Amino acid sequence: MATKSPRLTIDNINQRIVAAQYAVRGELAVKSEVYRQKLADGEAANLPFDQIISANIGNPQQLDQKPITFFRQVASLLENPQLLNHEDVLLNNLGYQTDVIARAKHLLKTVQSVGAYSASTGAPAIRESVARFLEERDGFPADPSHIYMSAGASSGVNTLLNIICASEKSGVLVPIPQYPLYTASLSVLNGKCVPYLLDEQKAWGTDLAVIKEAYSKSIAEGIDTRAIVVINPGNPTGASLSAEDIRNVIDFAAQERLVIIADEVYQTNVFIGKFQSFKQVLSQMKVEKPGHYDHVELASLHSISKGMVGECGHRGGYFELVGFNADVEAEIYKFVSIMLCAPVIGQCIVELMVNPPRQGDPSYALYKKEYDSIFHGLRERATALHAAFLQMEGVECGEPQGSMYLFPTITIPQKAIDAAAKEGRQPDEFYAMRLLDSTGICVVAGSGFGQKPNTFHFRTTFLAPGTEWVSRIVKFHKEFMDEFR
Amino acid sequence: MATKSPRLTIDNINQRIVAAQYAVRGELAVKSEVYRQKLADGEAANLPFDQIISANIGNPQQLDQKPITFFRQVASLLENPQLLNHEDVLLNNLGYQTDVIARAKHLLKTVQSVGAYSASTGAPAIRESVARFLEERDGFPADPSHIYMSAGASSGVNTLLNIICASEKSGVLVPIPQYPLYTASLSVLNGKCVPYLLDEQKAWGTDLAVIKEAYSKSIAEGIDTRAIVVINPGNPTGASLSAEDIRNVIDFAAQERLVIIADEVYQTNVFIGKFQSFKQVLSQMKVEKPGHYDHVELASLHSISKGMVGECGHRGGYFELVGFNADVEAEIYKFVSIMLCAPVIGQCIVELMVNPPRQGDPSYALYKKEYDSIFHGLRERATALHAAFLQMEGVECGEPQGSMYLFPTITIPQKAIDAAAKEGRQPDEFYAMRLLDSTGICVVAGSGFGQKPNTFHFRTTFLAPGTEWVSRIVKFHKEFMDEFR
Repeated sequence: MATKSPRLTIDNINQRIVAAQYAVRGELAVKSEVYRQKLADGEAANLPFDQIISANIGNPQQLDQKPITFFRQVASLLENPQLLNHEDVLLNNLGYQTDVIARAKHLLKTVQSVGAYSASTGAPAIRESVARFLEERDGFPADPSHIYMSAGASSGVNTLLNIICASEKSGVLVPIPQYPLYTASLSVLNGKCVPYLLDEQKAWGTDLAVIKEAYSKSIAEGIDTRAIVVINPGNPTGASLSAEDIRNVIDFAAQERLVIIADEVYQTNVFIGKFQSFKQVLSQMKVEKPGHYDHVELASLHSISKGMVGECGHRGGYFELVGFNADVEAEIYKFVSIMLCAPVIGQCIVELMVNPPRQGDPSYALYKKEYDSIFHGLRERATALHAAFLQMEGVECGEPQGSMYLFPTITIPQKAIDAAAKEGRQPDEFYAMRLLDSTGICVVAGSGFGQKPNTFHFRTTFLAPGTEWVSRIVKFHKEFMDEFR
Repeated sequence: MATKSPRLTIDNINQRIVAAQYAVRGELAVKSEVYRQKLADGEAANLPFDQIISANIGNPQQLDQKPITFFRQVASLLENPQLLNHEDVLLNNLGYQTDVIARAKHLLKTVQSVGAYSASTGAPAIRESVARFLEERDGFPADPSHIYMSAGASSGVNTLLNIICASEKSGVLVPIPQYPLYTASLSVLNGKCVPYLLDEQKAWGTDLAVIKEAYSKSIAEGIDTRAIVVINPGNPTGASLSAEDIRNVIDFAAQERLVIIADEVYQTNVFIGKFQSFKQVLSQMKVEKPGHYDHVELASLHSISKGMVGECGHRGGYFELVGFNADVEAEIYKFVSIMLCAPVIGQCIVELMVNPPRQGDPSYALYKKEYDSIFHGLRERATALHAAFLQMEGVECGEPQGSMYLFPTITIPQKAIDAAAKEGRQPDEFYAMRLLDSTGICVVAGSGFGQKPNTFHFRTTFLAPGTEWVSRIVKFHKEFMDEFR
């Protein structure tokens, strides 16, 4: 038999995956892991750094953020319910307060076992708990039957885009810059990304005129634009939208019958202003103008991955649907049921996130202390990093507003742009690669999120502790500018 | 403003999802949950049963299967590492043996925190552990760099089919009957399902002639058939393939350059014969005929959901790739990284599954006792259920071979077929619906898996304890036959 070759080649597999771009875990991230391994293996003699700082991913517990004790105590009892029979546990000799034990018992009754599948959309009592949280947060009713548990927010986004993308003409308005989950998923699903630029001069807010223009252009091109994504607070920008911006988006969506996908995973990472949910603003608008907004379809997403919870490894999240047709929801049910259910322990941590210890509960004091300490720590780090950026030549960066990121503009000299072109890279990719090679710090180039033509950025988390790594960036930047200025 | 309607309708959303069928959690399952709620709410006065038996899903811990203590003890320490500082834990006053503590420390070192994202393909040390397991199981090398952690096997199948389905002409050979994940996913991905019938007369083995015929027919129809799915041990059939059947499939795949997708999640649920993996047989064939099979692409999947582990709620699994082109694997990496990573606690339980306590370890005796007790319990239940089926008029069912299911043939009288047609149902759906309404027992109709035309089946798990529910089936069947004979 003549030698045969494998059937699948880069040219005959799904080209929509080949075309997808996802820089957050791309070449830079892979290279940083190679460096990390070299350091671990003691092959660091040639490297100009002795530590990798993964500032490319919002992965709090990989860096310095400690899990919140209440969450993990309950989780440990869910994993090992035999502990509930031990006197040492019940007498609090191991730090388990009575509210921890009561919650674990309640959740075990709800899910039977964290090793069992739940209902496809999640355990009913957990969805009820999410609904109560939404009602308390927003002051408007929430219906558990329209709440779907997901594996992080990403799988929720994947579900929604799968439903929305009916053909290669199905368009979705996506902010630029954006978390590349959206562009990558649209590419895989053969939908059309209809980009609208955020306004860096307005602290990365939305600009209705820009959205309208992007929409009209897409319609003129024959695209069936049917949804708009808003990430609030922003990723990678950190921006918190004003109530006015949110109203404008809802009004426009109502007018053009656009499904709103509100990615609100950073809702507790807010340093300036106050988070307002799309659900709340939409509900208010419905009260103000009865009958006017009943047809608006809103899907809002949240997760346990970010905020002070930071439990991204547990893959927990949910989305709430408002205004969707019942038969469309039935198809969403079918779609999620093919993957059976979201991880059950992740669902339980969602319940703990939305229903944390309250004042008066035995675990409250520690919970509050831990929560506040994480919040203030993040703000301090963001402030220190921001101050460093302001010192750097040609770097501009708005005041830290929230999320886990800063997204500074960098001015890249022409000589560096030319050198990047020689390597076949975007100028900011070239910059980020140099930064990694020189300092061990891994960020994501702005081109990975999209940006206005001829502007350059990078996204860095401010999760890493200390200031030493920040000074490494400052030093690198000076050397880079000296080399290419 | 005139009243507007929501944008998304059943007619304009993704029609590939609308067309997909997934009976395992379909109408019957939904109805059974409604009954369950009624029973819980005390509204059972009108119902002819007082308990729901969910025999539709292989969900061991929802029914009677207890988690294995070793797994859950380690998981509880991973969730609450503070326990590792307590004397009561270290002195084994809470049942934590030294090997439990050592393993938890090892895994914590590996993943840092179960709340942190791992690398996209899984934590490196866990993938190494899987590779060692495969080497021990098969006697051939396994390379951790080709092992991908997944959220159960389902997400692995989803990844592979996403890569394989390049256009509406991309065909995949799928056994009939099959677990409907395959047909549903192919529908969503707009790939072509190329069905090949399993041979009920040969204990649901594969028949090479049938596979060849299905393949040739698909080629004649212009389908680019590029992969073959084999579920071994079978779902819903329970069949264990012989080494000869496996060889035949591999030979055929080698000849036609078909990617082999070997779904081996029931590899430890085997009552008759011995499980042989595709990887092992392929590796042997490579030794016997050097150079002849190097181009064969094999993806084999396993999970923590089934077997004596039964931790489906944790959504853990992995797949191993053999013979794939490196640039195709790079696209698989990119695809899985868009969803970030598999649940980390689920990854850890995969590690515990593939590297359980060994003879001499402090936890071994209990582990062995629990494992064996589950195994024997499943076999006893299968045998009792099988014996009941043999008493039933017009029912045929092969000896229980493995997995978690029996898949009996039922003879449905013409009067019942007519009554089903009036309700717009398949005859076996009609039967299963009647069974649920009369007894509270939820099974899945054979039409949900596919079956030879004019044959009827249902799939039931044998996970539920006791024999009372079995006698309910016998009684129902007699009444059904009396009504429609």
